[in-house]
This record gives sequence, C-alpha cells and structure tokens, in this order.
Amino acid sequence: MNYSSIPVAQTVVQHCKAKDIRDIVISPGSRSAPLTIGFTEDPFFNCYSIVDERCAAFFALGMAQQRQRPVAVLCTSGSALLNYYPAVAEAFYSTIPLVVLSADRPLYKIDVGDGQTIRQDHVFDRHIGYSANLKQDVSHATEKIEKYAPHYLEGDMEAIQKGIQAYNDGELNKAINLAFDKRLPVHINVPFEEPLYDKITLPLVHPNIAGDKSGAIALEELDDFSKIWNASTRKMVLVGVNYPDSVQREFLETLAQDPSVIVLTETTSNMHHPNFFPSIDSIIAPIEKSSHTEELFAALQPDILLTFGGLVVSKKIKAFLRKYKPRHHWHIDPLRAYDTFFALNHHYKGSVNDFFGLFVPKIHAVESDYYGFWNRIKEDCEAKRKEYLEKIPFSDFLAFKHIFESTPGGVQLQLANSSTIRYAQLFDLKPSQEVFCNRGTSGIDGSLSTAVGAAMYNGKQTVLITGDLSFFYDSNGLWNNYLKSDFRIILINNDGGGIFRILPGQEESDTYATYFETTHKLDAEHLCAMHGVGYTCANDEKSLINQLDGFFESSVEPKLLEIKTPRILNNKILMQYFDFISSGIINHIL
Amino acid sequence: MNYSSIPVAQTVVQHCKAKDIRDIVISPGSRSAPLTIGFTEDPFFNCYSIVDERCAAFFALGMAQQRQRPVAVLCTSGSALLNYYPAVAEAFYSTIPLVVLSADRPLYKIDVGDGQTIRQDHVFDRHIGYSANLKQDVSHATEKIEKYAPHYLEGDMEAIQKGIQAYNDGELNKAINLAFDKRLPVHINVPFEEPLYDKITLPLVHPNIAGDKSGAIALEELDDFSKIWNASTRKMVLVGVNYPDSVQREFLETLAQDPSVIVLTETTSNMHHPNFFPSIDSIIAPIEKSSHTEELFAALQPDILLTFGGLVVSKKIKAFLRKYKPRHHWHIDPLRAYDTFFALNHHYKGSVNDFFGLFVPKIHAVESDYYGFWNRIKEDCEAKRKEYLEKIPFSDFLAFKHIFESTPGGVQLQLANSSTIRYAQLFDLKPSQEVFCNRGTSGIDGSLSTAVGAAMYNGKQTVLITGDLSFFYDSNGLWNNYLKSDFRIILINNDGGGIFRILPGQEESDTYATYFETTHKLDAEHLCAMHGVGYTCANDEKSLINQLDGFFESSVEPKLLEIKTPRILNNKILMQYFDFISSGIINHIL
Repeated sequence: MNYSSIPVAQTVVQHCKAKDIRDIVISPGSRSAPLTIGFTEDPFFNCYSIVDERCAAFFALGMAQQRQRPVAVLCTSGSALLNYYPAVAEAFYSTIPLVVLSADRPLYKIDVGDGQTIRQDHVFDRHIGYSANLKQDVSHATEKIEKYAPHYLEGDMEAIQKGIQAYNDGELNKAINLAFDKRLPVHINVPFEEPLYDKITLPLVHPNIAGDKSGAIALEELDDFSKIWNASTRKMVLVGVNYPDSVQREFLETLAQDPSVIVLTETTSNMHHPNFFPSIDSIIAPIEKSSHTEELFAALQPDILLTFGGLVVSKKIKAFLRKYKPRHHWHIDPLRAYDTFFALNHHYKGSVNDFFGLFVPKIHAVESDYYGFWNRIKEDCEAKRKEYLEKIPFSDFLAFKHIFESTPGGVQLQLANSSTIRYAQLFDLKPSQEVFCNRGTSGIDGSLSTAVGAAMYNGKQTVLITGDLSFFYDSNGLWNNYLKSDFRIILINNDGGGIFRILPGQEESDTYATYFETTHKLDAEHLCAMHGVGYTCANDEKSLINQLDGFFESSVEPKLLEIKTPRILNNKILMQYFDFISSGIINHIL
Repeated sequence: MNYSSIPVAQTVVQHCKAKDIRDIVISPGSRSAPLTIGFTEDPFFNCYSIVDERCAAFFALGMAQQRQRPVAVLCTSGSALLNYYPAVAEAFYSTIPLVVLSADRPLYKIDVGDGQTIRQDHVFDRHIGYSANLKQDVSHATEKIEKYAPHYLEGDMEAIQKGIQAYNDGELNKAINLAFDKRLPVHINVPFEEPLYDKITLPLVHPNIAGDKSGAIALEELDDFSKIWNASTRKMVLVGVNYPDSVQREFLETLAQDPSVIVLTETTSNMHHPNFFPSIDSIIAPIEKSSHTEELFAALQPDILLTFGGLVVSKKIKAFLRKYKPRHHWHIDPLRAYDTFFALNHHYKGSVNDFFGLFVPKIHAVESDYYGFWNRIKEDCEAKRKEYLEKIPFSDFLAFKHIFESTPGGVQLQLANSSTIRYAQLFDLKPSQEVFCNRGTSGIDGSLSTAVGAAMYNGKQTVLITGDLSFFYDSNGLWNNYLKSDFRIILINNDGGGIFRILPGQEESDTYATYFETTHKLDAEHLCAMHGVGYTCANDEKSLINQLDGFFESSVEPKLLEIKTPRILNNKILMQYFDFISSGIINHIL
C-alpha cells in the first residue's frame, strides 16, 4: 500500500483509521493531495468525490446523521473551506459529528499574497466543538523551511520533529475524541509544503492514538422530581428531533396511559402512539384564533414540562410555552439543554432510556382530565381536518395530503426547510416512516445533499420532500455519482417562498413577490435531464394522483416528481384551515 | 414613502443613504423584512433579488469591483449569512468593500433552540475589516423585552433607547467609513424583534452620521530610493491586479524607455505597452527547463523590484523571486503591502500616480542590457509560441488562441480560476480589453456570479471565460433576472479539473480521475435551457471558428459557447509548449 511521504498526512489518516472514521468526502484540490492519497490508497476508507464543498459537507452530514458517528470532509486550501460553513453550523446545532479536514499552506505563506490562501485556523470558532491547527513537519521539505522559515529549525531537528509529532497527536486525539463524545463538528487544519504528491510504501510515523472515553454519566437523584410529578395533574411531554426507535416502548406506554400526561410529538420526533398529539399546530392555532384564547391556554398550561430530543419546529408551541410557562421544565439529554422556553430549571444529563429506567418505577398515573380534555379536542381537530381536506381545491395543502397518503411505510422521509416541515407537522405520518430534517439552523441550504448522503447509510428508500427555493438553492446536490436508483424527490413548486405569504402584513405587491417570495418561473425538468434523474410533473389533483401511483416502485434511475401548485391560493387555504378547525374547539368549550 | 417601524432598521437604511451606498442585493427572508422594507420602499436604492446567498454575495462583489465603492448584501438570520463567507474572504483579499448586512434574532433568543438562529456576531472575524454588532431597540416590541429580557429596561427607557441609538450610530459610522477608507468588507449584524413587517410613513430616528475622511496620505522621502534606483542597471517592475487606465501613461512610458528596466505585467494588470513583458510564464518556464537555469535566472535577478497592484497569479515568478531575491523590494499601495517574496523592505503608502508623480522627476534612464537581453528572449518566445500554436491539434491551448483572437476589443473579460487565468497569462490580450479575475482567494467558487454582477456596472459587453468545474460550481449564478442580453460565457469543458494534470506525480489512474481531476460528463446545455441562455457547442477547431464567428454580436438573450476539448491531451500540449519555447532561450545564451 502507498502512503503520502509527508508525516503529518500519515498521522491524520492513521488517527482516522484507528478511531474507525471510514467515510471521507473529498473535494478536488492540490494542497490536499497528501491526505487524498492517504485516504484513497487505503481500502479501509470509503471515499466519495464531490466538487462543490457546500454540497460535499451536507452530503457528509447526511451520512453522519444516519450512522450517528463521525464522517470526514476533506478540502484544499483557501475559500473551499468556507463553503463548508453552512453544514458545520447545522452539525453544531444538530449535534452531528462532522470532522472537517482542511489542507493549508505552511504558516509562513499565509497573508503574503499566495493564491488560495486565507486564515484557515479557527475559522469556524463560533460554531465548532474544537479547532485543531496542526503543525507542519520540519522533516519534510526541509530545504524550503531553511529558506523561508529558518527559525522553525532552531535546535536539534530530530527533537523538533518529535515535538511536532507529539503536538499533532495530541491535537488529533482531542479533536476526534470530542467529535465522538460530544457529537459536535470539529475542524482539523493541516499545513503542507510541496512536494505534495510523493508516495512511499511504508509509513514513517507511528502516531500516539489515545481514546478519551468519559465514564458513564452519573445519574442524579430523581426522588424530588418524581414527587413533584406524582403530585401534578397537568404534565406535558414535548419531543423534538429524535432518532427512530430510540426510546423503549414500555416507557412511552407509561406516559400514554397516564390521564395527567399529554405527549406532544413533533414530526421529527419519530415517535408514535395513538394517545400522543402529533399535530401540535392543529391544536394551538385554533386556540389562538378562538374567542376563548386565554381560558383555553390556561387550561393547556402544564405544571411540569418534560422535554427531550433536538430542536423544536413548532413556533406556536414555543410562543405558547414562553407565555404560559410551566412551573417546572426538565430537559433530558446526555450533553446539553437549551432554555427554549425561558423556564428551564433542570438539565438531566443522561440518556432518555436511562432517565425513564429510573424514573418510571417511581411514578404512577394520576387522576386528571388533562389528557381527556385535550384528546377530545384533538379528535375534533382531526375530524375537522379530514372534512377540510375533502373540500379544498388543488393547493400545497392538498398536495401534501396526497403525498403523505401515498408515500409507502418503511421509507425514510427527508424534509426540507421550511414550509415542507411545517406542512408535515399538520399530518399524521405513518409510524414506520422515519423523518429527518436539518433543524439545527433550519436553513434552506443543503437539504438535497443531506438526503443524498443519508440515503448512503439508512438502508431504506429515501424520499426527499422539498419546496422550490430549497431545491434550486442546493441544485448542485445532484452533481455526484451517489444518487441511488430508488431515491425519490417530491418537489412542491409554488414558484417562490410561499411561506412568506403566511406572515402578517403582506400584500400583493411587486416588492413582495420579488424580495420576499422571490418568484422565479423555474422548473426542475432541465436539471433532471442534466443529472440523469427521471422527471414527471403534476399540476392538478388528478395528475398528482396518477403520478404518485407507482412513483415509489423500483426503477433504473432516481426520480423526481414536480408538483406545481397555485402560488397565491396556497396560503389562503392554509390560513382558512386554522379558521375552520378552530370552530370545533370553540364548540367544545361552550 | 414608507419606513419600517423599527428604529434600528431606519438607522441602517439612513446611514447607507447618507454614505451613498445605493446597491443592495437582497436574499429572501422574514427576519430581514424591516431592512428589506426600508431599502425597497426608497427609490434612492437599486435593489436586486437573489435567492442563493453565495451567489448574491459574489454578484454584489462584481458590482463593487466595477464601481470601486461599497455595495451591500442583505440576508435573514441563520445559516444564510454563512453562505456569504466565500465572497467575504475574496473581498477581504481583493480589497473590495462589500457591506454585509445580516438580520438577527434578539440576543436573548440566541442559543435557546430557536429556528434559523446561530451566533452571527463576529462570525467573519478572520477576514473582515470590521464587525459591528448593533443593539436591539427597547422602544420597539417593548412588551416582549419586558417579558424575556427585563434587564434591558433597567432605568429610564427613553435614556436607554437614546444610548442604543448613539451606540448603533457609532458602530455604523465606524463600519461604513472603514469600508470606504480601507476598501475592506465589513459586517453589520442587526437584531430585530417581531413584529417585523410594520410600516410607518415618517421616520422616527435622525441618525448621527459622521464621515471619517482620513487626510491625504503623507508622502515619504523618495530621495534615497531614487538614488538607489539611478545607480542600478537591473530593475524589475511587476504589476498584479490593477484597474484599467489607473496609471498615467507618461509614467509607463518612462519605465518603458529605460533600458535598465523590465516591466512584467500580469493579465489582470490591465496595463499594456509594446516594451512590457505580458507573458511572464513564457519567459520563466523555459528557463526552468533549460540546461542553463542558474545562469539565466542570475541574469534575470533584479537589484530592485518595484511592485504595485493586487495579488500575483504567476507561481513561476513567485518561485523565482523567492529564490533569486532582489536586494530591494518596494511595494506601492495606499493601504497595504504583502511580503510576497520575503524581501519587502519598503511599503510606500500612497497611490501609484502619486508615487510616480514624485519619483519620475528624480530618476533617469540608465545604460544597461537588462531590457535588451530579455526583450530578445521575449521576441524569440513570441515567435516560438506562434509557431507552436500553428502546429498543435485541437486542445485547451488552441481553443484559448481562437478565443483571444476573436474576442472583440473593448469588452470586459471576466476570467475564472484557475486554469483559465493561467492560460490567459500565456497570450497577449488586446489592450482595449479589461481583465478581471477573483484573485483574492483564487477560488473556483463565484466566478459566474461575479461576472454577472460586474456586467451591471462596467458599461460594456462582458465575457466570462471559465472552465467546467468553476462553471458548474457556481451554476446558481444563472438564477437571477440580471443577465444582460449581450452577456457571453465561453465554457472550456475538458471534463474536470484538467489543471491537476499539470502537477507532478500524476498518473492515469481511477483515483486520479475521481478525486483530483473529478471527471463528470456534464455539459451546460440543460442549464442554459433552464435559465434562458442561448447555447452553442464546439468540439473541434473548425466548429470553434464557426461558433465564434458572430458570437459576440447583439442578441435577444445572453449566450454560452461550450468548447469540449480532449481531457487527456490538453496538458501534454501545454507541457510540450514550455519545452518547445525553451529551445529558443537556449539558442540565445549559447
């Protein structure tokens, strides 16, 4: 096997191998050649080639999201690295361990006017777990160092090189261990001097690779909390982004059977039970619109809020809980807790299963009408929604109904920001469908690349559902050789960011259409032809039903279904939906 | 006229207006609505709408590059901002005053799990002139502040608001003045609380807008330097990125007529004289290849190196001057000087014309064969190049010959990184053609968007010449309504990053084709159809000549000419070129 002749390149590659980081997404470059050689020559690694670094990083993020372990991206020096930033920030807030490897010029070539040279070290410091800035070997390209940076060589060269090796080992251990333990992105910057392409057949270095297994997280005393819990008749559990099947069924049953508990599950929670409340906005919006808002919100306000999972999509539940604060808010997570509702009073630092394993034996069901009252409202809303969906014309809302009805069980849904995920929250998805969405930064950038990357490892058919701005934004996500033939894209094209129409204060003006909604008249047909993706299109209910029929069946090439919906009508229909179901709630209270 | 109801939004807009920043490139968003309203409601501003922030920022950069004054970009909160970073770094190293305006959440909503929320303040600190992080008004959305951040309101609210106004004015003055004076990008982060869309008809605020005109830069004593200059028989002037017609002709004549001076002009220098040396690599490469390298380089080594303009493309001249250092290196620039050759001993802080205005009267021509010797070699090389170009088959090199021959005078050439600009350096372009290239970071990202933006203000036909990786990387650069009908793209598609083939140590392997060259089989036809760009294609010399004929004439829609060249042959032909012309040099010395 061949190795790069540069010690620090060998060191990085061996650290990745020892820690079992197998997936390396490589963008083209010359400065990065020593690492590209190291990874591609060793069959241990699965290497992927993607030109546009913005896409490459989201593709890696999608793989890491599914594997739940670190995946690396590698790029050359200069602005290439900066194109990773959107995905790095998403990884940071979604706690996905993306390992960014950037090749750099030698330190003495920074800010002297060399090409493709920027200040790479610490460039992501606002959103990174750790930034390791490795040191250049003095045993490689020594002649150049003597010429340009002779002070690097003051002393015994062998000792200096040994010190560099130890420093680099230490930084690599810190960075990679942190990626595993804290599930955060890390950045490892690696300076190389030319020659960059030389290979040798035996490795020069034997890096000092150390683990950093933190012990099992200590469990705190739950007695106090269980007493408060058992004394309360109004407890709300709210679940954000969460991996499928990650919480034991028996714990969910305990919560589901307690009449003093309501469990609100976001679409991204991947958690299902007939007694849970999956369509949060369908409950909250009608309350906002009713003439009894304060009474109803007071009736919904929990004593105790228990949360777990990642970031919460529903703006309405956030606004509600910020206004009607729970007396107690506990969040369960091994690593961190956001004070999303400005009411957090305890962060339980452990896994959800560990928590419930200790907690459930201490608690019991409590007599209450909390669940019963809200469940009747939920049932009303569901009946109303069904009724509403029967009568509306072709629109985004109706399209989503057909999409979710026809999407088979067992697939993985990748949802784009932001109207797609918001519409999805209004439907009950099939329990066997997994749902993912980049909710860390909630950006419209990178949904397509993330889905393509996720499909590499989720072991099931992947269906991306996306709006048009999000899709075209990341159109380079199709530019790679990794689109699986069963990959499906459903593109709801309403000619712009229709979501802005939902916002208050918008009128029919050119300014609005240009600068907020950003109408464009594009469709995806040419892009599909360019990238070998099968294309079909629907623009009314009948053609949509026809096109969805058989759409998910196996095919030679991946497929995209573009659904063209009426730009202006869409949001009227959505707003009227909330009006329509709110009447159900009001009947109840009266 | 309408104004946003939010004081800080009015303040930002009024500062931009007072400082005559007219061009605002807006990406869609809700958090940014107060600024979008402010800019779009006032006819003073030229507003542009571009969805993909990466493209939006390069588009703005292109406008600022041509106007040589600040242009603003505006985006919503979250990862949107991070997509600006590649253009921000390019602006930083190319000293282009890009004003980044980002809408942000209120401070107390950061890192509590809200959507589209990251740590925006100071996010570009490695590559920015100034980061202004404005303060949220307390006079707006006061109820929310009372609820979530009551400590903001400790004291007299009117006094607090006055303090905030004064702080924001101060920060805006600092940032915008710096953009003008130092020609660097700046970042202004603006937090907004809902409601975001309210408008009022009279402005609430009267910002305190201050200039910061630094006095004319003091001129230093040039006597010493002119004595050294007059005593030397070997003086080299090297000109990097430079605006057309920016240096007075008489000064160039003085240099051109001095037999002890050789003037090396990069393609991006936009500087022409028959006595100058425009094809630097055609001189240096043959020396490297000759059997008399050391003698020839010793003969070329200058006593004095005088440089001005921005970053230098030619790697060969950098390597040569780093090895054969001049005794004196002076750089002329009002703001900064890079020590590119590790030999800088003076930075003359003033304009090039100011410098020569004082310097030229103090100097005189000096008897020497320095110019004569190298001019004979130059003439030989030119003859050899002509001979070589007559005999080579269809390839990148031959395609560039035809492109540069047929491109009309008077157009502006926008060249992509990196093989395009490197090939261009081998030809003498027409003196009436302006040449621009993003050499700050020398990235392959953003060339297309920059060219589209530049075309808005350069007042002439714009021709982008680009390779395939660079073109497809920035394909979203076509996604806007600002492509002029006379805009032309010449795409040299050699199926990957052919430039890597020039590098040492490359062989014909799958690894090489996948991870370095990144072959892809894409062409631009579908993209052109998608975006309403006329498409033609050439794949041999004859069809190229045919397609170039009439290509630049006026048309209803912009046009793209795709030239498909043979992937593997290209670089052999380039390498052989240097071999071929090197024989001329050797004949000379013998």
